[in-house]
Amino acid sequence: MIIVLKPGTSEQDVQQVADAVKKFNYEPRLIRGVERTVVACIGDERNHHTLESLIVLPQVESVTPIQKKYKLVSREYQGRDTVLDVAGLKIGGGTFHVVAGPCSVENQAQTMETAKVVKSYGATLFRGGAFKPRTSPYDFQGLGRDGLEILKQARAATGLPIVTEVMSPQDVEMVASYADILQIGARNAQNVPLLAEVAASGKVILLKRGVSGLIDEWLLAAEYICVHGNSKVILCERGIRTFEHACRNTLDLSAVAVAKKETHLPVFVDPSHAAGRFDMVIPLARAAVAVGADGLLVEVHPDPATALSDGGQQLKPKQFGQLMAEIRPIVEVMGKQLGRA
Amino acid sequence: MIIVLKPGTSEQDVQQVADAVKKFNYEPRLIRGVERTVVACIGDERNHHTLESLIVLPQVESVTPIQKKYKLVSREYQGRDTVLDVAGLKIGGGTFHVVAGPCSVENQAQTMETAKVVKSYGATLFRGGAFKPRTSPYDFQGLGRDGLEILKQARAATGLPIVTEVMSPQDVEMVASYADILQIGARNAQNVPLLAEVAASGKVILLKRGVSGLIDEWLLAAEYICVHGNSKVILCERGIRTFEHACRNTLDLSAVAVAKKETHLPVFVDPSHAAGRFDMVIPLARAAVAVGADGLLVEVHPDPATALSDGGQQLKPKQFGQLMAEIRPIVEVMGKQLGRA
Amino acid sequence: MIIVLKPGTSEQDVQQVADAVKKFNYEPRLIRGVERTVVACIGDERNHHTLESLIVLPQVESVTPIQKKYKLVSREYQGRDTVLDVAGLKIGGGTFHVVAGPCSVENQAQTMETAKVVKSYGATLFRGGAFKPRTSPYDFQGLGRDGLEILKQARAATGLPIVTEVMSPQDVEMVASYADILQIGARNAQNVPLLAEVAASGKVILLKRGVSGLIDEWLLAAEYICVHGNSKVILCERGIRTFEHACRNTLDLSAVAVAKKETHLPVFVDPSHAAGRFDMVIPLARAAVAVGADGLLVEVHPDPATALSDGGQQLKPKQFGQLMAEIRPIVEVMGKQLGRA
Amino acid sequence: MIIVLKPGTSEQDVQQVADAVKKFNYEPRLIRGVERTVVACIGDERNHHTLESLIVLPQVESVTPIQKKYKLVSREYQGRDTVLDVAGLKIGGGTFHVVAGPCSVENQAQTMETAKVVKSYGATLFRGGAFKPRTSPYDFQGLGRDGLEILKQARAATGLPIVTEVMSPQDVEMVASYADILQIGARNAQNVPLLAEVAASGKVILLKRGVSGLIDEWLLAAEYICVHGNSKVILCERGIRTFEHACRNTLDLSAVAVAKKETHLPVFVDPSHAAGRFDMVIPLARAAVAVGADGLLVEVHPDPATALSDGGQQLKPKQFGQLMAEIRPIVEVMGKQLGRA
Repeated sequence: MIIVLKPGTSEQDVQQVADAVKKFNYEPRLIRGVERTVVACIGDERNHHTLESLIVLPQVESVTPIQKKYKLVSREYQGRDTVLDVAGLKIGGGTFHVVAGPCSVENQAQTMETAKVVKSYGATLFRGGAFKPRTSPYDFQGLGRDGLEILKQARAATGLPIVTEVMSPQDVEMVASYADILQIGARNAQNVPLLAEVAASGKVILLKRGVSGLIDEWLLAAEYICVHGNSKVILCERGIRTFEHACRNTLDLSAVAVAKKETHLPVFVDPSHAAGRFDMVIPLARAAVAVGADGLLVEVHPDPATALSDGGQQLKPKQFGQLMAEIRPIVEVMGKQLGRA
Repeated sequence: MIIVLKPGTSEQDVQQVADAVKKFNYEPRLIRGVERTVVACIGDERNHHTLESLIVLPQVESVTPIQKKYKLVSREYQGRDTVLDVAGLKIGGGTFHVVAGPCSVENQAQTMETAKVVKSYGATLFRGGAFKPRTSPYDFQGLGRDGLEILKQARAATGLPIVTEVMSPQDVEMVASYADILQIGARNAQNVPLLAEVAASGKVILLKRGVSGLIDEWLLAAEYICVHGNSKVILCERGIRTFEHACRNTLDLSAVAVAKKETHLPVFVDPSHAAGRFDMVIPLARAAVAVGADGLLVEVHPDPATALSDGGQQLKPKQFGQLMAEIRPIVEVMGKQLGRA
Repeated sequence: MIIVLKPGTSEQDVQQVADAVKKFNYEPRLIRGVERTVVACIGDERNHHTLESLIVLPQVESVTPIQKKYKLVSREYQGRDTVLDVAGLKIGGGTFHVVAGPCSVENQAQTMETAKVVKSYGATLFRGGAFKPRTSPYDFQGLGRDGLEILKQARAATGLPIVTEVMSPQDVEMVASYADILQIGARNAQNVPLLAEVAASGKVILLKRGVSGLIDEWLLAAEYICVHGNSKVILCERGIRTFEHACRNTLDLSAVAVAKKETHLPVFVDPSHAAGRFDMVIPLARAAVAVGADGLLVEVHPDPATALSDGGQQLKPKQFGQLMAEIRPIVEVMGKQLGRA
Repeated sequence: MIIVLKPGTSEQDVQQVADAVKKFNYEPRLIRGVERTVVACIGDERNHHTLESLIVLPQVESVTPIQKKYKLVSREYQGRDTVLDVAGLKIGGGTFHVVAGPCSVENQAQTMETAKVVKSYGATLFRGGAFKPRTSPYDFQGLGRDGLEILKQARAATGLPIVTEVMSPQDVEMVASYADILQIGARNAQNVPLLAEVAASGKVILLKRGVSGLIDEWLLAAEYICVHGNSKVILCERGIRTFEHACRNTLDLSAVAVAKKETHLPVFVDPSHAAGRFDMVIPLARAAVAVGADGLLVEVHPDPATALSDGGQQLKPKQFGQLMAEIRPIVEVMGKQLGRA
């Protein structure tokens, strides 16, 4: 921690800060500058009480941590890329996977049709929502367990592992009995009890960044999962909320590059939720590949105009085929292996 | 819903849109404009399938809902102010209450001391966190049930009703057995299973706006609680995340004025979390009263420099006394009654 | 400047940083921490080359300035409040002034009528735009010099000093020959050539915060004016751009409190542009007084429905009268003197 | 325009709105819905007074424009891509150009060295700032005309056309006599007098998006230039200001895709200013190519650690060589021709 004191602080007030620092078991080092005195505080910031509360002392101008708060997810802790195994698929470490499927599981026919068609175009995992976190209580809330049963049939029919969202700690065990990957949605990005519970399931977790989540908060949410004994985490960037509303969110591809640098975890991108409009999904998917992502989540529906949720952002099967055709050469340029290829 | 078609849309394509609209049981009315044709769709938007998915049709330029999505919380539904009863206190409808207490319940002594002193200065409810949603897994996570026991003692000693946060659906019953008001924190502002569970408790719910929550989303979260049979909701503005970082969040007092106009619910303000720094709490508290809020949440700690969480934003008891002294005449100007006065 | 080195940096690489620091005439002090070495760099950051470019060295993790960049506008430089004289009015230092008038000067009748009526309700300065910075080239761009002539007549008729915006360095001399206070609009908040030119006019400058201006940038824009020899600056908060769109901007009243603490300059608030809707202007005006502002800018139009610009945010004369009635007792609570009172 | 009336509006009040609409020469069409009446107003919104001011009528709930405000820059106005000629280079329409050079022209040696090296790696235009818009008055403000003279020498030595910023209307003629492309910086994105003046120069204009500029505002700024008779505009996305601060700005690549769809103008990307840190420039450059941009602006400095401005974001020459090597195959995948190739 670096504590900067206000100009003109008396020797006695400097000493008071040094004493407070010692009380928290840091070692203070005083640096007398031109205008200000700085107290550098030596000690492991993760194991000690934060000194940030010393800002309440009248002679303190600022308190700045110098350590990063996350550890287990960091490149410093593990230099090599994490490679996860999902039903025999390798995720991360030079592979590139496309997870595709409808926003919501609406019924058996829609789900099975979508699963087969996305597989035919090269998707290697299948997604579909059975529990839907909707902004309005009057919107379709998902089929629940019935939806999970349909997903199970889709896996049986196609062999594609299933990615689906879980919203409540109480549902984790049930959802985990159907899913290959548990998704934590953007609205639950800091839902600590849920993070603890999914960690305990032992499943691979796909962790979306919060709607207004700082990259640091996103990595700390992953750290929560790791601290609870499960390091099988895929990070997923899905756009952040900004002032711009031409798209529903602003896809932050720099976050992908930062996350790839700071952590050893695979990083996926969800261009469908980022854009909120189908006509932006393909260009953003290409850009996601080029920035260095390890996979994509893409929403596909046989007839988006009649979808029960987020119809405007779902691709028709042929459009999904075009997406796959357009990303394939960029995946190659990036030196990655697409799907099972 | 208003559907705007692209310039030069053929008669056949106009008809296709009209047919799609009919299929969803709206009645289409065509308006031929100078450059564009508009399809006005008549039907209750809350009971019908949304037409927003029609944006995927190539001839559609935009689809705009015209109804508000919330109903039970709206002034249209109930014109008069909701007045809640909490252990004999009237909340809303011309009263003004200050909820004060520490960020976290740290131990019995700190909690009891704070409860007594905030009461002496005029607080009418007591707050303290037993379950703490922290960004980092290495930070203090709260005392849990032990903290609730301490809060119970504080109520016994002072008579102040207790406001405390609940983070998990599984904990609702237990927390509700101790608390007078259940708080939903900003990170859980769209945690649908939790909203349903607290609604079922029958308690008064203090619902914070999400860190990046639109006012519409905040009101829809309240609508979720109402739809689940509990209309005892207090809205609480606590600052939103913006680019500015002089304060931790940007207190959005226009949201208070908008919420007072759009809904019949009481609206409180939490200047402590908004500011994230103690020296901004008092001016923001004054402004919150003047904009028309019905109450405040203020963090107070006997010794903020040693606090286990958010020390930098907590007031010392004397500073809290000053806050009460400064808001009192503004509460009067606003024609409201402060606390039990 | 505080330079944090990456864990495991070799002694030689530490020395390279220390040498680089010396080359820029700072004195480096090494602090060996638990995981990281910190280089505290002693030297006046305003007179020296920034060290921030050292982030390009591979062993450097972060570089953090510790001095504030502004000086002349700071409370450290001048402890007492600046009090400005505008045609005999004292601005700042315990007074409270309301500047009112139409968004645009549209014609003589509209302008004169508004000037008289706002004066009758207690406004002490008159505002009106002759040069209008509009988002679209197809919108009304203002009357230019003809508008200034009308403003001159309004001053002659009412005695109210004139506040009006100038957008181009070439127009400063002309506008200054008509206006008592030159306004720098939010779009020009970092227009350096314009800041230099208005400084040279010797007029009082009302400096709006940029649409997405950090408080630091706002104060540095004021510093530009001071550096060019003119310290007669009024800061004006007018809302910032955020994700929320219930109002056009989000009024940031914490910025007022921060600016009052950090600087000695008067701080005004423009609730009309912040809200972008007339029905939020009065509550925000009350809050602005209560947070500690020294004045308000309020838009008033005899018939807002027919206004040539921003009709939706302008108050009718009677509504302005209500605003004055509602803020008066709060100005008194704040211990300030309203207008000439 | 679509005007939505409040539920329960009387027939007389409906008629009042219809009459107001007629007064502004629109033709009103009434649609009686389930809860609300809608007034669809027929008329060209660009040639008529806006109806948005009717929001002040008490019976009006909302007023929504349905036309886009820009025209000359739109795909509706011109379907084919604009292709610009700059000293024989074709910009847009299937070409891809990299503009490279230092943030600031610091001296002759640094500038000439950089120009030669970026040319050797494949840059086809040279950039360098002579007039620098700096946040602080204490930072390096650029060499002014001396800098322009050095740029002239760089062009003479390398044949690379020059891109440089102009900040003041008074300087346009002078800067235009040196530059091949005039750059409008993000801080001047809505500086209307400057937009008018650069339009009059007849030069190609590189128009950066504002720091918090909506895509609509960016396109309207381009429309200003076109309305003033100059349609030679290159749009340039350079990151927007959001809550995230891992990078200085958030590069918004969806804005590139939206701009490519909405307009016929070439769209460039500046990953250097977006990132504000050199280590993110290459991945963002790759992504910019893949999303569909027509060119890049990249900052390069022989020794970034000693740069007089923005050292932290400038690439060393070898890093720039790596950038060119990494984007080349993606430019090919996109079916574009890189530089003069």
